[in-house]
Amino acid sequence: MDQANNQIREETLDPNDWEALRQLGHQMIDDAVAHIRNVRDRPLWQEMPPAVREAFASPLPKDPAPAAELYQELQEILMPYPMGNIHPRFWMWFMGSGSLTGALAEFLAAVDGSNLGGGNNAAALMDRQVVGWLKTLMGFPADASGTPVSGGSMANIIGLTAARNAMAGGDVRANGVAQLEKPLRFYASDQVHSCHQKAVELLGLGNNALCRVPTGPDYRINLDALADCIARDRAAGFLPTCVIATAGTVNTGAIDDVNGLRTLCTREGLWLHVDGCIGALIAIAPQNHRLVDGIGEADSLALDPHKWLHVPFEAGCAIIRDASVHRGTFALHPEYLEEKTRGIAASEFLHDYNLQTSRGFRALKVWLTLREHGSEKFGRLIDQNIAQAAYLARRIEETPKLDLIVAPTVNIVCFRYDPGGMTEAALRDLNVEIMLRLQEAGIAAISDTTVSGKHCLRVAICNHRTTTGDLEMFLQQVIELGELVRVEKPVL
Amino acid sequence: MDQANNQIREETLDPNDWEALRQLGHQMIDDAVAHIRNVRDRPLWQEMPPAVREAFASPLPKDPAPAAELYQELQEILMPYPMGNIHPRFWMWFMGSGSLTGALAEFLAAVDGSNLGGGNNAAALMDRQVVGWLKTLMGFPADASGTPVSGGSMANIIGLTAARNAMAGGDVRANGVAQLEKPLRFYASDQVHSCHQKAVELLGLGNNALCRVPTGPDYRINLDALADCIARDRAAGFLPTCVIATAGTVNTGAIDDVNGLRTLCTREGLWLHVDGCIGALIAIAPQNHRLVDGIGEADSLALDPHKWLHVPFEAGCAIIRDASVHRGTFALHPEYLEEKTRGIAASEFLHDYNLQTSRGFRALKVWLTLREHGSEKFGRLIDQNIAQAAYLARRIEETPKLDLIVAPTVNIVCFRYDPGGMTEAALRDLNVEIMLRLQEAGIAAISDTTVSGKHCLRVAICNHRTTTGDLEMFLQQVIELGELVRVEKPVL
Ligand SMILES: Cc1ncc(COP(=O)(O)O)c(C=O)c1O
Ligand SMILES: Cc1ncc(COP(=O)(O)O)c(C=O)c1O
Repeated sequence: MDQANNQIREETLDPNDWEALRQLGHQMIDDAVAHIRNVRDRPLWQEMPPAVREAFASPLPKDPAPAAELYQELQEILMPYPMGNIHPRFWMWFMGSGSLTGALAEFLAAVDGSNLGGGNNAAALMDRQVVGWLKTLMGFPADASGTPVSGGSMANIIGLTAARNAMAGGDVRANGVAQLEKPLRFYASDQVHSCHQKAVELLGLGNNALCRVPTGPDYRINLDALADCIARDRAAGFLPTCVIATAGTVNTGAIDDVNGLRTLCTREGLWLHVDGCIGALIAIAPQNHRLVDGIGEADSLALDPHKWLHVPFEAGCAIIRDASVHRGTFALHPEYLEEKTRGIAASEFLHDYNLQTSRGFRALKVWLTLREHGSEKFGRLIDQNIAQAAYLARRIEETPKLDLIVAPTVNIVCFRYDPGGMTEAALRDLNVEIMLRLQEAGIAAISDTTVSGKHCLRVAICNHRTTTGDLEMFLQQVIELGELVRVEKPVL
Repeated sequence: MDQANNQIREETLDPNDWEALRQLGHQMIDDAVAHIRNVRDRPLWQEMPPAVREAFASPLPKDPAPAAELYQELQEILMPYPMGNIHPRFWMWFMGSGSLTGALAEFLAAVDGSNLGGGNNAAALMDRQVVGWLKTLMGFPADASGTPVSGGSMANIIGLTAARNAMAGGDVRANGVAQLEKPLRFYASDQVHSCHQKAVELLGLGNNALCRVPTGPDYRINLDALADCIARDRAAGFLPTCVIATAGTVNTGAIDDVNGLRTLCTREGLWLHVDGCIGALIAIAPQNHRLVDGIGEADSLALDPHKWLHVPFEAGCAIIRDASVHRGTFALHPEYLEEKTRGIAASEFLHDYNLQTSRGFRALKVWLTLREHGSEKFGRLIDQNIAQAAYLARRIEETPKLDLIVAPTVNIVCFRYDPGGMTEAALRDLNVEIMLRLQEAGIAAISDTTVSGKHCLRVAICNHRTTTGDLEMFLQQVIELGELVRVEKPVL
């Protein structure tokens, strides 16, 4: 419509034809149900043909195109070529398998549209509620503080920033770390996830400020070695600041002795941060919760609902025991963001607990997932994955030519195909080839790693669709491929 | 099913009844269409009744509940109480209005489920494609680098981290900032967004390392004052490092002289970061693009598709001119994340450009939004919002008792209701009351701020649903409420 008085010809992004978009929505729902329901019948992964790759090289679209056509295009170029993590035999990287309900929650969150920067709205209350539930699950007191973040890496950054600011002394927010009397030192095991290196680099402390403490044969941090490091650093004029415990290492699933670390940190006056991205949720597993005993006593904790709660990406959460430290690290009040007592802004600014200002409504998918299934089911599913890993390890031990490299503490199994008489280098090539062929055939997704100097295949079972039958089929295929590759490439 | 050999009774999160969930999905689509289509007919916002607030205090759910019942609950406690930013008269904070297509894209991204940490999959290619499109839109060269992030705050953190690491000299990743010869200094105008304070605090530089340079009456950074600061800091032994230009300040929409800053930074050897969260996309607006001339010449740029591209939260993007600096700031290769030449991992790790490891599939909503409407429409919509702000300012000037405090540079109008003869304090109270009543009645959402010492109402039009008629209705209501409040509370 032309506005007589100002010549603005007003446009909107809303569709001309709502009914057509509604029908397209129905089509998407139907296709999504089929996509998830039949995931087991499709290859886990397949290589993209050149035409598909080329489609993603198309230039910026200047002109419009009908939504239905675009959806058709997505059905051709996108949906057949996923990472594969929703498939029952994806055990490659540690991530959730998603769910249809989780995907619907993402849709609803976007329809609601609220910005979780804060404000007096239902989404913000649900955000607080979900953080409360996660605190309960983790055994944190009700007056602890927390914030949903994009994932485990960011949850760790939040925790380590709070640690730095709380322990540094002086006004580190104003003056930075260069003016501190003593350089800070953080400690973690040599199995620590790489995101912590990025975190200490980001924080201006530098990677050298993160001491990697040796682990024992169980890949858990050596407490005596840690105590030695702290003593040596103190004597050398550093300020020992924070210990990062890992509850579930990415390589082998090892869980540091959190209780022992708590005692040590309290005695030495250090902050205890727990990276529970992999393992924190084991706290709710009836058969295995003891493995992570004590994580509720940490000063800060990172956990990752997009792993063992299987909500779609992204959802991490940072919990900080002392809410005033949490606020003290991140809160700011510029004039255009003043809190009001009435109306739309009449509530806490949630960005006072976070590095994000605008924030998506991550809480809804966690809320809907926990409500639909109940928290107890997630505990059972975690036990199930751990039992599956134990089962797999047992079957590997029983099977000639398969060598268990690390017995699983939790749900990560490291092994290799070893027909005997091969060099380490040849074994490596052979096992990499097996891994790649399993991927290329869309049968199973596993990764490889090196532990204690031995190259091995790594199976990380964080998957609510995996069955014992999948594990059996997988082992069968490993063995068949092992034989086949040796025949095809006898040089290996 | 019981597995005879291991006693695992296997469960999954998949529904027992797919058909029921499919029908619930259809219901959600229908309701969402109605929700968005009829948004104009509902109050923009409403206060939550106590029963709704209490619903969000319910404890952790241990037991399951049917999805359909939960959805019904959400229809009652969540959907009627949003922030309101999808409404045509939401002009309070600077954020997008969303769209049904954007919400459907969120659903599809979650169904696909890929983790944008990287890998050889279609989602990763689309991520690269969308970054390429944004580089094109912003006038960056094809060999520049970029990464989708959670929003503008994170995009700024990415840019400033790259600036710090590139300019500090020495191995700041290894050694941190405490061992630098000279303390770093960043510069921005006194109108800079608060997220930059958080960024320099995070980076270990401290808030004092961010010099706020005075602005002129146009709220743009004063180039002479900036040059003076730099010279003074250099003389005092600091290392002038980075200038943060703001293309669209949050208070008034002011756009720094990017070309002037580019010249200055090149001459002085400083990094130029542009915070274009609000204004970068003006680059594609046919009538106004000159306002942000030169942003394609920045060393790094933060932009925010969840603002003027109206994709649902979250979607920000950082662009770094020198791809090797980008990688050099964030890349890491632990052994379990080795790049492969075949299979699922045969591609770049996208987390080498980001602080996140796992990352959601944000690109899809940007892709679908740009493809559906074409980039040119977004240019027109931005011009439309800017024209609407100009229109509003004109109408304010024409209207007795309304006082234009800052004429809009772009789409932000600051004004107040001033019937004459009132003190500043009383005017403030009166205008706050008007603002709150507009919110409480669900008529319009605006914020207030103080510019040049004057309290005023702030209308930020980043909304594809706003019409001139909405602006007229709004002004009418402001005047009526102004009269009403003065009658009701003559003390004001
Ligand atoms: C132990 C550990 N910490 C942190 C992370 C990072 O989590 P995210 O990928 O959610 O950022 C991971 C990821 O797998 C992890 O395994
Ligand atoms: C100028 C400016 N920079 C940065 C930001 C932060 O962006 P986000 O809310 O997406 O984190 C904003 C938010 O409004 C802004 O206006």
